[in-house]
Amino acid sequence: MAKALVLLSGGMDSGTCLRIACDQFDRSVIGISVDYGQRHVKEMEFAKRQCVYSSVEHRVIDAPHPPESMLTNADIEVPSISYDEIKGVSPTYVPFRNGLLLSIIAGIAQDMEDCEAIYFGAHSEDAENWAYPDCTPEFIGAMANAIYIGTYHKVRLHTPLQWLMKTDIVELGNKVGTPWHLTWSCYKGEEKHCGVCPTCISRREAFITAGIKDPTEYAEDL
Amino acid sequence: MAKALVLLSGGMDSGTCLRIACDQFDRSVIGISVDYGQRHVKEMEFAKRQCVYSSVEHRVIDAPHPPESMLTNADIEVPSISYDEIKGVSPTYVPFRNGLLLSIIAGIAQDMEDCEAIYFGAHSEDAENWAYPDCTPEFIGAMANAIYIGTYHKVRLHTPLQWLMKTDIVELGNKVGTPWHLTWSCYKGEEKHCGVCPTCISRREAFITAGIKDPTEYAEDL
Repeated sequence: MAKALVLLSGGMDSGTCLRIACDQFDRSVIGISVDYGQRHVKEMEFAKRQCVYSSVEHRVIDAPHPPESMLTNADIEVPSISYDEIKGVSPTYVPFRNGLLLSIIAGIAQDMEDCEAIYFGAHSEDAENWAYPDCTPEFIGAMANAIYIGTYHKVRLHTPLQWLMKTDIVELGNKVGTPWHLTWSCYKGEEKHCGVCPTCISRREAFITAGIKDPTEYAEDL
Repeated sequence: MAKALVLLSGGMDSGTCLRIACDQFDRSVIGISVDYGQRHVKEMEFAKRQCVYSSVEHRVIDAPHPPESMLTNADIEVPSISYDEIKGVSPTYVPFRNGLLLSIIAGIAQDMEDCEAIYFGAHSEDAENWAYPDCTPEFIGAMANAIYIGTYHKVRLHTPLQWLMKTDIVELGNKVGTPWHLTWSCYKGEEKHCGVCPTCISRREAFITAGIKDPTEYAEDL
């Protein structure tokens, strides 16, 4: 059976990709988490638990730390606002982060016998208004080409959430059995989900709109 | 003046790119060398000397080490053959290396005020027969798109050697003043250029065909 790698952050998007990959590659799947100095390193534990849950291997790769940003420097405060209030460049954009992560995983995939797919959970809501340019369909298309070419036409980039909004992902995740209680979204990486940072707000609203219960406990009410 | 970054290995290709960037960006240029565990780390010294020669800043960035290959593991012997004898995947291909290097430099460029260009010295001879897929025009086009999009349409990838063979680069380098004595090509990274590894052979032949004197001293005759 051919193998697939899943770029696994521990969040609900890549967690849903992991379930889809397990279905399509008959669990011949490896979850890859990259430590690039993110402050919400707590994600890693959740990524690991998701792999245990789906009975697949999990690997953590060390990466060079990209230029400093809100997501890698704990001294910069994460704003308690929703993505709707962010105009232009998101303050949480880590410059070219997804290019770096995809390049690392492409090197691993090229080196691995029978590996023919990389799953990456970018979605429409992150791409909206160019908040995260490295989640746009244009960026994904470019990287899919680079990966396919750079791996001698061996590895394809799969982005099953590319055209979905966060609410759609909740609905899809429910179908494929994403273990929501093992997903971590909060940027702050404290004991509980803070409930008020951009990703917490986005998560809560998605579950509410989908009419599906989110088992997550939040530190603060909306 | 806008800034340009040059992905600088210390070899003759990126060394020629450095000279071109200095011309086009009025020396508002920074040379970036990436340490990805290559055994020929001696290149770094040469990259630094080239920057001193052109009076521009030089930075060394640590990168995660890609999957092991002949260029990063000193226990694997570098073959004493020319590129012409290599069919299919080059034994010196470091999986997706240029994707990784370009992603690192794109993150730096996005984070730097007024930076609008990245120079990358991929050329036709490395792209021939798909020896290095991450030097092909298809790969370059894909990464150029990813970089332009991922930096909010700020940074363009410049590849002035993309359609040139090694001999053309010697001729171009002579015009733009590449300091050949400060360029390092050998994969083995010993005291002198070995003279018989694929890049040494390619370098020697290029200078001979161009009819230009190569100041390099080689350990072995052709």
